[in-house]
Amino acid sequence: MPLKQKPSGRLISFEGSEGSGKSTQISLLAAHLQKAGRDVVTTREPGGTEIGEQIRNIIVHNSRGDEMCPETELLLFTAARAQLVRQVIAPALLAGKFVLSDRFLDSSTVYQGIARNLAPDPVNQINRFAVGNVMPDVTVVIDVPTEVSLQRLKRRVTDLPDRMERQNIDFYTKVREGYLLLAKSMPERVILVDGTHSTEVVAQTIWEHVKVRLFG
Amino acid sequence: MPLKQKPSGRLISFEGSEGSGKSTQISLLAAHLQKAGRDVVTTREPGGTEIGEQIRNIIVHNSRGDEMCPETELLLFTAARAQLVRQVIAPALLAGKFVLSDRFLDSSTVYQGIARNLAPDPVNQINRFAVGNVMPDVTVVIDVPTEVSLQRLKRRVTDLPDRMERQNIDFYTKVREGYLLLAKSMPERVILVDGTHSTEVVAQTIWEHVKVRLFG
Repeated sequence: MPLKQKPSGRLISFEGSEGSGKSTQISLLAAHLQKAGRDVVTTREPGGTEIGEQIRNIIVHNSRGDEMCPETELLLFTAARAQLVRQVIAPALLAGKFVLSDRFLDSSTVYQGIARNLAPDPVNQINRFAVGNVMPDVTVVIDVPTEVSLQRLKRRVTDLPDRMERQNIDFYTKVREGYLLLAKSMPERVILVDGTHSTEVVAQTIWEHVKVRLFG
Repeated sequence: MPLKQKPSGRLISFEGSEGSGKSTQISLLAAHLQKAGRDVVTTREPGGTEIGEQIRNIIVHNSRGDEMCPETELLLFTAARAQLVRQVIAPALLAGKFVLSDRFLDSSTVYQGIARNLAPDPVNQINRFAVGNVMPDVTVVIDVPTEVSLQRLKRRVTDLPDRMERQNIDFYTKVREGYLLLAKSMPERVILVDGTHSTEVVAQTIWEHVKVRLFG
């Protein structure tokens, strides 16, 4: 287990479809927390470590013919996560830091489990194995309608559309529904935020929620 | 599940410490089977597919400081295995071929489970998830004493000693004991062969066993 004692730091994960505005909101929350005197570490999944970025590279660039099977995809995402937890997240939490992660284990539950139809039991077992006892204190799900998510994606300048972003509308609809279900089933951990508002309004909403949940 | 019907082909996995002579024996058994009129596919783990070879590359070259945690190692090996099963092994078995694999799921049980001390339950669960219902019909464990295995390794010309081969004697001793335990606990599937004999004697022993088990 990566954590033998209850750490003094806190882990906040950000979840949502691509184009939901996660990375912008992570920067804004990090700034809020730093102004409040907290040490902040931001990271992303898959990736966040040298090994994790190599794994990310395999996932993102194996898009020809979509030949990667969903089981392999799940195992690669959780491999990167296991490394991130032990190398970055757990040490930061033990040092009393706030860790903000762009995606964490719920992404596997939703993307590989719900959207790619892998059975929930093995997905949960493998997720638990990968994170050990490191669970998010708060998870922020930023919800936007599928059409908004896809429109925002199209506006992004990328050299090549990667594997995840070439999925079809049905897939993104399943992802969105998966996140809504997650928020409904775990209200004690998951905050659902409407991502169609302005960046400032979304940031303020997240900050208010985080203050209440983590600083009482 | 990768196999919906009982396939007409057969899967034979080869296991043992590095330096036990697996790859030589795979070539010799392949030749025997081909002479007996069988279609043979040989493969290796981790690897055997384009994605699997990329994963192998991460495992082999992340040797600086041994910073890869055992959980990540297990998930990477099983990711490569999941892809190999679905892309190569299951289709070959369905086409009636004999598949000879240099390592398969028992390597994770022994290396990541027993030798690296990961708990057996998650290792077994993740192994089962990776292989679906594709289990070896016969597993050949080639046993050599740890000192013989290490001497043979030293004689090999490699550009750089890779992560697996730099492990210490204690580790290899655990691996050997793990394989002996496996052979003892699963005699219906696993054949234990003394690898200290000459190449020809070992090959003949394996061939006799395989004939009895697979051709009655």
